Amino acid sequence: MHAPAILIIHGPNLNLLGTREPEIYGHMTLDDINKAITELSGKLNIKTKIFQSNSEGNIIGLIQENRECSGLVINPGAYTHTSIAIADAIKGTGIPAVEVHLSNIHSREDYRKKSFIAPVCIGQISGFGYFSYLTGIEALHNYLTNLKTSGK
Amino acid sequence: MHAPAILIIHGPNLNLLGTREPEIYGHMTLDDINKAITELSGKLNIKTKIFQSNSEGNIIGLIQENRECSGLVINPGAYTHTSIAIADAIKGTGIPAVEVHLSNIHSREDYRKKSFIAPVCIGQISGFGYFSYLTGIEALHNYLTNLKTSGK
Amino acid sequence: MHAPAILIIHGPNLNLLGTREPEIYGHMTLDDINKAITELSGKLNIKTKIFQSNSEGNIIGLIQENRECSGLVINPGAYTHTSIAIADAIKGTGIPAVEVHLSNIHSREDYRKKSFIAPVCIGQISGFGYFSYLTGIEALHNYLTNLKTSGK
Amino acid sequence: MHAPAILIIHGPNLNLLGTREPEIYGHMTLDDINKAITELSGKLNIKTKIFQSNSEGNIIGLIQENRECSGLVINPGAYTHTSIAIADAIKGTGIPAVEVHLSNIHSREDYRKKSFIAPVCIGQISGFGYFSYLTGIEALHNYLTNLKTSGK
Amino acid sequence: MHAPAILIIHGPNLNLLGTREPEIYGHMTLDDINKAITELSGKLNIKTKIFQSNSEGNIIGLIQENRECSGLVINPGAYTHTSIAIADAIKGTGIPAVEVHLSNIHSREDYRKKSFIAPVCIGQISGFGYFSYLTGIEALHNYLTNLKTSGK
Amino acid sequence: MHAPAILIIHGPNLNLLGTREPEIYGHMTLDDINKAITELSGKLNIKTKIFQSNSEGNIIGLIQENRECSGLVINPGAYTHTSIAIADAIKGTGIPAVEVHLSNIHSREDYRKKSFIAPVCIGQISGFGYFSYLTGIEALHNYLTNLKTSGK
Amino acid sequence: MHAPAILIIHGPNLNLLGTREPEIYGHMTLDDINKAITELSGKLNIKTKIFQSNSEGNIIGLIQENRECSGLVINPGAYTHTSIAIADAIKGTGIPAVEVHLSNIHSREDYRKKSFIAPVCIGQISGFGYFSYLTGIEALHNYLTNLKTSGK
Amino acid sequence: MHAPAILIIHGPNLNLLGTREPEIYGHMTLDDINKAITELSGKLNIKTKIFQSNSEGNIIGLIQENRECSGLVINPGAYTHTSIAIADAIKGTGIPAVEVHLSNIHSREDYRKKSFIAPVCIGQISGFGYFSYLTGIEALHNYLTNLKTSGK
Amino acid sequence: MHAPAILIIHGPNLNLLGTREPEIYGHMTLDDINKAITELSGKLNIKTKIFQSNSEGNIIGLIQENRECSGLVINPGAYTHTSIAIADAIKGTGIPAVEVHLSNIHSREDYRKKSFIAPVCIGQISGFGYFSYLTGIEALHNYLTNLKTSGK
Amino acid sequence: MHAPAILIIHGPNLNLLGTREPEIYGHMTLDDINKAITELSGKLNIKTKIFQSNSEGNIIGLIQENRECSGLVINPGAYTHTSIAIADAIKGTGIPAVEVHLSNIHSREDYRKKSFIAPVCIGQISGFGYFSYLTGIEALHNYLTNLKTSGK
Amino acid sequence: MHAPAILIIHGPNLNLLGTREPEIYGHMTLDDINKAITELSGKLNIKTKIFQSNSEGNIIGLIQENRECSGLVINPGAYTHTSIAIADAIKGTGIPAVEVHLSNIHSREDYRKKSFIAPVCIGQISGFGYFSYLTGIEALHNYLTNLKTSGK
Amino acid sequence: MHAPAILIIHGPNLNLLGTREPEIYGHMTLDDINKAITELSGKLNIKTKIFQSNSEGNIIGLIQENRECSGLVINPGAYTHTSIAIADAIKGTGIPAVEVHLSNIHSREDYRKKSFIAPVCIGQISGFGYFSYLTGIEALHNYLTNLKTSGK
Repeated sequence: MHAPAILIIHGPNLNLLGTREPEIYGHMTLDDINKAITELSGKLNIKTKIFQSNSEGNIIGLIQENRECSGLVINPGAYTHTSIAIADAIKGTGIPAVEVHLSNIHSREDYRKKSFIAPVCIGQISGFGYFSYLTGIEALHNYLTNLKTSGK
Repeated sequence: MHAPAILIIHGPNLNLLGTREPEIYGHMTLDDINKAITELSGKLNIKTKIFQSNSEGNIIGLIQENRECSGLVINPGAYTHTSIAIADAIKGTGIPAVEVHLSNIHSREDYRKKSFIAPVCIGQISGFGYFSYLTGIEALHNYLTNLKTSGK
Repeated sequence: MHAPAILIIHGPNLNLLGTREPEIYGHMTLDDINKAITELSGKLNIKTKIFQSNSEGNIIGLIQENRECSGLVINPGAYTHTSIAIADAIKGTGIPAVEVHLSNIHSREDYRKKSFIAPVCIGQISGFGYFSYLTGIEALHNYLTNLKTSGK
Repeated sequence: MHAPAILIIHGPNLNLLGTREPEIYGHMTLDDINKAITELSGKLNIKTKIFQSNSEGNIIGLIQENRECSGLVINPGAYTHTSIAIADAIKGTGIPAVEVHLSNIHSREDYRKKSFIAPVCIGQISGFGYFSYLTGIEALHNYLTNLKTSGK
Repeated sequence: MHAPAILIIHGPNLNLLGTREPEIYGHMTLDDINKAITELSGKLNIKTKIFQSNSEGNIIGLIQENRECSGLVINPGAYTHTSIAIADAIKGTGIPAVEVHLSNIHSREDYRKKSFIAPVCIGQISGFGYFSYLTGIEALHNYLTNLKTSGK
Repeated sequence: MHAPAILIIHGPNLNLLGTREPEIYGHMTLDDINKAITELSGKLNIKTKIFQSNSEGNIIGLIQENRECSGLVINPGAYTHTSIAIADAIKGTGIPAVEVHLSNIHSREDYRKKSFIAPVCIGQISGFGYFSYLTGIEALHNYLTNLKTSGK
Repeated sequence: MHAPAILIIHGPNLNLLGTREPEIYGHMTLDDINKAITELSGKLNIKTKIFQSNSEGNIIGLIQENRECSGLVINPGAYTHTSIAIADAIKGTGIPAVEVHLSNIHSREDYRKKSFIAPVCIGQISGFGYFSYLTGIEALHNYLTNLKTSGK
Repeated sequence: MHAPAILIIHGPNLNLLGTREPEIYGHMTLDDINKAITELSGKLNIKTKIFQSNSEGNIIGLIQENRECSGLVINPGAYTHTSIAIADAIKGTGIPAVEVHLSNIHSREDYRKKSFIAPVCIGQISGFGYFSYLTGIEALHNYLTNLKTSGK
Repeated sequence: MHAPAILIIHGPNLNLLGTREPEIYGHMTLDDINKAITELSGKLNIKTKIFQSNSEGNIIGLIQENRECSGLVINPGAYTHTSIAIADAIKGTGIPAVEVHLSNIHSREDYRKKSFIAPVCIGQISGFGYFSYLTGIEALHNYLTNLKTSGK
Repeated sequence: MHAPAILIIHGPNLNLLGTREPEIYGHMTLDDINKAITELSGKLNIKTKIFQSNSEGNIIGLIQENRECSGLVINPGAYTHTSIAIADAIKGTGIPAVEVHLSNIHSREDYRKKSFIAPVCIGQISGFGYFSYLTGIEALHNYLTNLKTSGK
Repeated sequence: MHAPAILIIHGPNLNLLGTREPEIYGHMTLDDINKAITELSGKLNIKTKIFQSNSEGNIIGLIQENRECSGLVINPGAYTHTSIAIADAIKGTGIPAVEVHLSNIHSREDYRKKSFIAPVCIGQISGFGYFSYLTGIEALHNYLTNLKTSGK
Repeated sequence: MHAPAILIIHGPNLNLLGTREPEIYGHMTLDDINKAITELSGKLNIKTKIFQSNSEGNIIGLIQENRECSGLVINPGAYTHTSIAIADAIKGTGIPAVEVHLSNIHSREDYRKKSFIAPVCIGQISGFGYFSYLTGIEALHNYLTNLKTSGK
């Protein structure tokens, strides 16, 4: 059997990475992150489909159109805190999902601590820069490979 | 130079793992998790010091007494939501820390969504069973090896 | 004079109906619902224009572009609870509207009980499956035929 | 088999309809509404038992004493927002119920937006004047005739 | 050196201006406002790029694609109160921005008093009809010409 | 007819401007601001009456005693957030008013985001340093010259 | 023309007056209060109809059945804080009403400070023992005699 | 013994009465109200000392300087809702006080429903125009004449 | 001296017990509970007077009419959470009371955790099925026999 | 089979009983209470293991170490309101538990009304002095003897 | 160099001290407190300037006019809880300040627990009667003498 | 008679003082503070017993075991904001207590502004570094020497 494909979605404003305010967001661009993701995918022998979108509606569409993927790693950006519709898309398609964040959303403004998306995901990883993505992919891969390991 | 030592703290009630309600918490005991941690430590060529305690005061003491450790991976259990004192200990010792949870705290009772600890940590990982610990250790190891990667 | 045309808008994720989780959402697809709508329209001798969109902006656009319609039956899905902009579009175009929901939003999560849209509508119907749409069309038709019946 | 009997309950102050403030509440009296209900019942070939009461305790009694009815259409008036006891009566008797309102409660005072009753009903219909009752009866009739149509 | 270009963004439903409810919103259309903006731009010897969009995602895209502009005057409409993502786009691109509103948002519904956008702007102007735009452009122009004048 | 007189009121602590913490509040003193106001007044051919007071009661008195003025530009300082009585004075005298702030009150402490005064004003301008006053005067002048421009 | 009749309603538990805890509630019984009311009525040359009820439903009924009265003085007791239905009865019958309380409800538990009834009344009088009733009757009498005196 | 003197304090903006917005506040000026107060005082054979002030500090001073008065009737205007200091002055001097309001504060904005002053008064009377003052004086006079009547 | 009589009140919907949803509420009917109460009364050599009512007003009446009883054991059902008037009746009659619940109200909906009645009772017992009544009677009996045992 | 052993835990500060403030807490010491518990245990033919601890961590330990007990009667003292960890221990060990309080926690400070522990217990008993313990033991004994009696 | 002058401000109603309710506020008058302050000043070899005012505006003025003082000890009385303007005056003048209270504000009404002033002070001392002032002066004197001691 | 002994308790994390982050917390260690306390004790001719603990349970124990002390000066650290149990211990032992804080807790996170401990203390002193302790001891000493000085 061929390696399972994983859907990667970068939410709003993540395309700005690396080109601005590098003292805050680091020097990595979204391309750099995507390269690291692709590299890891190779190691894990999985395929990934990577998208970035600034639009809530498009993200919902991407999730629906790619529901044949084995799982989803999503950084919903600011939609984390405002979009019930993206959460409904994840729940509605039933695609196993992991929410990731570059920064530690728990140490920022209060309104960034609440996630509408996390409750419909397997778990949430936040604060580890681009490594949040890599960890999220590994965690999802583990989950898909062996559901038994996801004790609660 | 020798491998950096990482402090692992399991909070209240985690010693109950595996011996009860396996349909919810899985069949792994805390010993099984600790073995997996030790195994990973070997691979990463780091040392770990592992503790479990049901007492808020003891956990504060453990953090203070082990502040020479290069980092901390902590599952604060229920103290996540009630202990400002543990957060102060982490902040006061300045030890780089990662908060981990077996279950997805964002999909449980509302009072489990708030963490006093996460704001003083590098990041938070929740929902991946024992893999939350392993991921936390790897993320912390990466952070310590290369602070530059922890973009925000 | 010819029969009045009514605009029907299905909000985000409603295109998923019937193809997944039939034990929850039933076996009807959105097409099935649309057929029932069309059938009722025939009986009532009215025309309908039916759209589905996952995008808040598109839904606003659809309302604006079809403001010549005599009325609107809208299931705003998750945007019910987050979109002031769709409410503004309904109020701004002045199109008489009815909000409908397949499920009973009053027996679900607390954040699903609040509607930004309902206060600018004639009324709200929730909980009757696809019949919510049919009822909404009839209620709107009655309202348009005879404003006197809409006592308060 | 004979047609199923449906219980209709008008809550507090609904007996005032039509005799006062017709510019707001319309010229229909409660008798007029009841005639429309009876007329529809004839068309649907069902029986109805109709009551009005200003007393929370009486309404609870009416629900209990008529629990052999196949369903309930209730306009709980102001008790919608304050009576846990009526909700308990509906839940306790297990009678399938529909909550209806003449006015759109979602566009009035904030304390009128919350319903203790709706969560224990099949659904809620508000804002369509006396047509809310007729629609409620039809929706309940459909529900009782074919539980399969009540997709969620 | 040539005159600085300023980006003007009209948010959702502002394209409805003047064509409906003139007793509330006045008889000016969005075109009329844009003409006044262009006229003022000529006087100030600056260039402007003007857009209207009903879509949160598109507005984010417009800000990102025009980040070479010297500044932004934005009327975010209803997104003022719900879009963290547009605020992130302004902060992320670092473009100096001014929030403007035709109506006095502080004298309307409570949920219209909160702005997610204003905290990342130089300032907010609300309540002066189309003059809010003209004032915003002048204020931004002043700010850009002489940062020293923007005492706090 | 002679030029309309406009009342300018500087609220509590604004007399401290320029003499302290110039890195925050700039080097302009209240006198400098008043000169700029006077200069603009000359250009607009209007008269102004300028006052500063640290007392809520005095500010109410100033508004009442100068109600023959054609309008009011007020920076209520900290009373913005606590004084219902000043708002009542503005509403009670019926004098058209504009609220201005040197700093962007929307990017400061939460309790500074709420204004009791703004709801009884034509509009609010905040964040543009002394230019907030000049803009406020121009906006008020426009409003008084042509009420038609104050679309909502 | 004969003197106008005024309806007096004593709410729940007011029949307990004077027979218990006289150190708190005084030695006057409800009969004593009613005598004082009757005496005042004689002086004012008005008729009164006096009722006491412990039942929310009965109080609604009393208001409806006596709507030909020229006015209502009501001490709603604990229903002050919980009954939207009594407020609806007063508003629905349009009977001019005054809310009175023996004790000062503003100096008791927080939940006694909120009244659902007062907003649909001419005014509220609380804290003056049985004199609250007498004052309420006089105030209502004045109001009915001369609507012009009820300035706001 | 000579008749007891009663202190009457009119709070902020009450000096505006009658000269503006007579359709709302009536045609009576503060002088007219004061004449009615004086007339009643004659009938009751009491003396009154009447003051109006827009200043919270002055009102506190008036209460302190007139503490030899037998009682206080105060319309604190907007300070009702914001001044703990006036409440402290009443409590600190121990002067028996009655709070009065021309309008029904319970049917206005939510922030006008809360009184800091009422809890330290004998009672509150609101909604009866200038009659609120007269009633307040009578109620206070009764209270002072016979403390036994102030049952609770 | 003869044995003291204790008043037992079953609140709304408790008459439904045992006849419906036995999997939730058990197979005991209210009659069965009453038999157990009577049996216990015999053992304790006390008399009991037992009532059930669905009406808040009736319950108030029952408490007032039976105030000669030595104590009250009440299961206020849903009125626990909404009735200030029943609490006032208990406090007003001064009858020593115990609040009991069949189910554990602390593990149900949030609105069932608050009791208006418990603060005016000796204590509250919830969660022990019909044994809550028996325990309540014994606790009340103990309290009445020996007030000294009710340490706090 | 031998009598089941029941674990009794007295939480923080309960060791102070009887030695101080006897006018409030009565003259019974914790030893007196324990004697009464032992006496009842003899009558019921059960064994009890009794502990007192001021430490949250110790209480968790006691619950874990004694999980072979057939049940738990716990007075969590102030930890009732702050300890999620003790609740987790009870839930994690699965030991059937009853929460008891000497005083009526529902008539004290608001923060004492909320229990984190009660939702994971069979029930709660509060307000009956040392009799709360005895009743708790009996209720637990009944529950263990016959699960059928614990109807809800 | 001469001794530093310290500004002492007594807020509203503190002039009432000692002349009324001595059982609560003690027998010391404000003069007595001022004498104790002067005596301490002599010992510390510092000068003090002492003021009392009931007016928020005057207190702001006093702070501004005495900004050459080396520090401020202020008992803001009720303005503690309502005055942002006094806090702004302290912050705006940059004068080092200590907030003091005679009573323990943390054991009184909830609204007395919040201070707008304390966050802009070095610290707060409450509950020690006139000794709060003396302690405040000493603490301020220490702070001014040696900023290094004010560790945080 | 010999000098009264005072109990000094340093709460969680205070043992970290001086060894870390001296730029924030100063260079004094807990030993340095204790030396200053001992020195002051000598001057005041009192004895002190000094403890530090990171454990809530231990702190409760220390208070109970040392209740023969004449008073308590406690810096509860983070337990200030979370421990009702320590407050109960102080209240239960009746030991006169003073709460002290090195930093100004009123200028930090909102959750640090609330103290469960202060309401059961004589007073609170916060913000003066180690001088808070010295002042607390003096204030307590004064209180114990002369209860009359603790006016309110």
